Order: sequence, then structure tokens, then C-alpha cells
Amino acid sequence: MKIALDAMGGDHAPEAAVHGAVWAARDFGLTIQLVGQPKCIETELAKHKTAGLDLPIIPAYEVIEMDDHPAVAVKNKKDSSMVVALRLVKEGQSDAFVTAGNSGGALAAGLFGLGRIRGIKRPALSTVFPTASQYGHCFVLDVGANTDVRPEFLFQFALMGHHYASQVLNIPSPRIGLLSTGEEEDKGSMLTQEVGPLLKASQLNFIGNVEGKDITAGLADVVVTDGFTGNVFIKGAEGVAWMIQRILEQEIKARPLAILGAFLARGAFRAIRTKMDYREFGGGPLLGVNGVVIIAHGRSDAYAIRNAIRVAKQAAEHNIVQAIATGLEEYQEKV
Amino acid sequence: MKIALDAMGGDHAPEAAVHGAVWAARDFGLTIQLVGQPKCIETELAKHKTAGLDLPIIPAYEVIEMDDHPAVAVKNKKDSSMVVALRLVKEGQSDAFVTAGNSGGALAAGLFGLGRIRGIKRPALSTVFPTASQYGHCFVLDVGANTDVRPEFLFQFALMGHHYASQVLNIPSPRIGLLSTGEEEDKGSMLTQEVGPLLKASQLNFIGNVEGKDITAGLADVVVTDGFTGNVFIKGAEGVAWMIQRILEQEIKARPLAILGAFLARGAFRAIRTKMDYREFGGGPLLGVNGVVIIAHGRSDAYAIRNAIRVAKQAAEHNIVQAIATGLEEYQEKV
Repeated sequence: MKIALDAMGGDHAPEAAVHGAVWAARDFGLTIQLVGQPKCIETELAKHKTAGLDLPIIPAYEVIEMDDHPAVAVKNKKDSSMVVALRLVKEGQSDAFVTAGNSGGALAAGLFGLGRIRGIKRPALSTVFPTASQYGHCFVLDVGANTDVRPEFLFQFALMGHHYASQVLNIPSPRIGLLSTGEEEDKGSMLTQEVGPLLKASQLNFIGNVEGKDITAGLADVVVTDGFTGNVFIKGAEGVAWMIQRILEQEIKARPLAILGAFLARGAFRAIRTKMDYREFGGGPLLGVNGVVIIAHGRSDAYAIRNAIRVAKQAAEHNIVQAIATGLEEYQEKV
Repeated sequence: MKIALDAMGGDHAPEAAVHGAVWAARDFGLTIQLVGQPKCIETELAKHKTAGLDLPIIPAYEVIEMDDHPAVAVKNKKDSSMVVALRLVKEGQSDAFVTAGNSGGALAAGLFGLGRIRGIKRPALSTVFPTASQYGHCFVLDVGANTDVRPEFLFQFALMGHHYASQVLNIPSPRIGLLSTGEEEDKGSMLTQEVGPLLKASQLNFIGNVEGKDITAGLADVVVTDGFTGNVFIKGAEGVAWMIQRILEQEIKARPLAILGAFLARGAFRAIRTKMDYREFGGGPLLGVNGVVIIAHGRSDAYAIRNAIRVAKQAAEHNIVQAIATGLEEYQEKV
């Protein structure tokens, strides 16, 4: 299996990207194609032991920067690492694409470079959200690809989420929730009130509307929402986790006994940091495009990149593109 | 000053409501009109020392239940505690109304009972959100009154938030942020991209788009959003705070040394619980209606009710209704 990695994408590229690639090549026995400026990549590769690892460099001399306008950059920078890497996927020379670069750019490049799966109206960006249950997570989509949607888009997000959760995450009959303002059917926006009946009438395991606490309590395996709400939701969650950590640190520092206490409890603090750490999940798949695209956090370090490559491997191994295509066809035959 | 309290509203009514009223009457020297079923209220009052306190009972024999349909219940239950209490406000016999009952019912009762301030298109429900800065909070609206909005509604929410923050919360020139998916002007939904320019062109202290982490970092004093997104945002935050507390408890319990550590650090844990405790803020004003209406959390205990009454007192003292009415007129003259 070959994974094309955007070696130039992310706040800490190319250092974190190349380091993450070496790590993933070693841990998962994959070929990682390092796409980007050869000199930069060679310099970074030289810092690691790479004997026996398959880390070919694929030259691409332009970079889609964090502040580039996504669609314009993808159109104009034909020799950028993103566009070149996606061409590899399109041509079958790679099984998946991973990037921590400009996420709008990655969306645009993925959509233009690979096209949509037949019948899919809009691709959706997804993420894995932690829950309080010990091994549980919740798969949330869309978290930013589509800020303005129609009911049928949300319905397809649910269908794609179902196939990802069942095929890749190995959850039989995943419980699907619709993010809304109350559990009752009549709660929510005009949009969610149109989507609810569609989901209820489908063969998906739809559990109804869910709110924030239902998600963190682990009541749903897949949560469907529009990209605006989903993005606000995950960034709000990040903000709250940050705030709690920050306030707790301040309050502990103000109390000598608490400093000792925190030292004794450091294992518990470490465990919760790991549980909440976005780096563990690496990145979220862009579902609905005709290939595997994994979009990692812009501030990904090497560990996050390694894990994003793991996610790409899993999605490619379970052939998520085919699963969604077949699932959509089956669904349409039934209707 | 007289505050009309819905003695029958909330998960723990009438016990918590009456107890909170006694507490507030004592602490703030207010007259609290206890609106509801006299027998129930008398039974609860008998549990407290009320000598010297002014706690008149105003009979209302019906109750808008938590699972009642808001608009229908308000229309049919003319003798409910909510409808009767709002009549007192309307007739000038009370300066404000406080309820922990069915919040949809409170919205409907407030809107039908008091009407809108002239020129206000939609009332907005608001809440105070904690931030990491030591004394800072953020005032967020709308958090649930309007799930589907138009740009001019959001603009008016900003105007109302400005007046509430400057007049009642005493923040000179409050910084106003628009909840969106990125800080850049071109990020967001069609809605936010229409509202941004309106806010920028106004004389409000508009700081642009804000995301979750900007809010918890304390970068804005007022955050404006539609009622769907705002509701998902605050419930998501609640869910994450709950999850972190839950996981931390589990991780601590699994480690004997950490149990000792948590004991030593208990002061810090207590401090953060207080900081994050919704009960400290009591309730959020329903802005835009022609009177002071404070909507408290359904699961409010006596302390939360006491504080919701404090919020009502402050809003009435600073005459928030007049401030919004005048502010809107001044703004319209300028345009």
C-alpha cells in the first residue's frame, strides 16, 4: 500500500510531516510518498534512520500556503504538493492522500482532483470526537466542508457516516444521531426538521436528535450535522477543554498543597490528556470524493501525522470509497 | 422593587423556587411575588424563616409542564403561573419575571404576554458563558429562541447584546464577535457573511468572526449567533465539561495515589467547579420583549433561582428595556 503525504502542509511542515512519515513507514510497513520540494524533504529525511523504509520523494515545487484562497490556489498552483499528490491518487499510483495543510485547499483539491463518488451531492469533512465511555468515540460529520446545506446533503452524510463507521471503524449497525437543539422530534431548525423524517424512514439505525451531552455520553456512534454547526461544535469543544485545563492549572499553582496533589494525580491527568488528544485520531476523512483523503489538524506534530497515515491506511484497506458507492446504489434501488 | 417568580416552574419546583425566593428576598431586600398554587407555596414557605421578608403569594392554579407544547400551553392555560406572572409585569405590578419552567413556554409566554420592543424583529435568549480570564465572562445570544434567522435579526441581537453588556454588565464599549467557522471575513455561512458587513459598518465595537477558542480565551464580551448554533454551542460546552469531569473522576479512582492527590488539590477542583457552574449566573435574559424576563435552567436549585432573581433585579434596575428601545431608535436615526 502506498500513501501520498503532503510533505509541505501544516504549521510544522516539512519537519513534522517527514518525521511522521518515517514513523508511520516503520510502524505500519507502508510506502509513504513524500510529495513536495525535494531539497527540503531530503534535509529532513537525513535527520532520521530510514534504512529499509520505503520513502520515495515525489517532486512538487509549489506550496498551497495557509493563507491562500483555497479554490484559487488549487487552480493556479498546478505544481503544488496537494495537487500533485492527488494526481497520484487519481492515477492509481497512490492508495490515499494525507495532508495537514490549508484545509480549505485540501477540500478544493480533493474535490477538483478526484471528483465526487457518483450520486454524492457534497463531500463531507469528518472527525472523531471523544466520549466519556472508556473505548468509545463518536464520528461527526460534516465539520466544515459545507456551511450551507440542503436536507438531502445531510441525509447523504448520514449514509456515508454509516458506511465509514461500519466498514472502517468496525461498529455493527452504528447508532446515528442528528445534532439539534432538543431530543424531541419537533425541536431544531427547519433543516433538521426536514432531515429527521428522511432518516427515520431509512434503514439506517437512526436514534433521533442528539445534543452535546448525548454525544459526550456516548449515545451515538455517528453524529450528522451541517458543516457550519459541526465546525462551531468541535471548535467550541476544543475551546472548553482548553479553558478547563487552563483554569485548573492556575488554581493548582495558587495552592502549594494542590501542587503536590496534582503531582500525585499526574497519571490521571496524563490519561485524560491522551483521551482528549486530537493527535490520537490523526485526521478526519473527507468522505464523498472518489478516493481516500485524510485531512489532519494544521498544527499536527509528527505523532499526529503518523496517526493520520494510520487512518488513511484503514480507510484504504476497507475500501471506503467502494463501500459508499455501493451503499448509495443499494439505497437508491430501494427508494 | 418587585420580582414575579414562577413558583411552579423547573425540575425542582416548587421547593427550589420558594427556597430561592426566600434566599433572594433576604439577600437583596426585594419583594418576591410567588406565583402559583397557594397550597404548595404555603407548604414550602413554612419550611423557612420568613419573618420580615416580603413574599406575597399570587394565585395561579395551572402549570405549564415541561412536556407541554409551548405555544399551545400558553394559549390554553390562561391561569398558569407563567401567564399570570407575565400579566403582573405587563400591568406594572412587577418589575421583572423569573422562571425555571419549560423554556419554550417561557419564550412564548414572554412574547405573547409582553410583546416586542418597538422595532425589534425577534427576541433573543441569552446566557453568560465562562472564560479562562479570571473575572471575565462572555454574553452569548441567541441560544435558542430563533432556530432560523435572517441577517437583520442577528444584527439586532448584536445591538441588544451591546446594550445589555454596557448597561447591565457595566462593560464600556463591549467587544462584539460573530460566531463563525474561522476568523477571516470570508469564512462562515451565507448568513454570517451577510451579517459581518452590517456589523462592521455599524458603530458597535465589532471585532469580527470568533471561534470557540476565542470565546473561552475571553476575546469577546458579547457573541452573536443564531439560536440553533448558539444552543448547540452551549450544550456542547456543557457536554464537554461534564465529560472531562467524568473521565477525570474515573482515572483518579483507578489510582490510589491520585485519590490522595485529588484530596490535596480539592480546593482547586472546587474553584473550577464554581467558575464553570451555571448556577452562579442564575439565568439568561430574554432580550427584545417589552419587559424583563429571566429564563433559568430547568434543573435550577435554590441557589440558581436566587441568582436568577439577582440577574432580574440588575436588568430591571438598569432599565434594559428602555436602553434597548432608545438604542434601536438612535441607531435607526443614524441609518
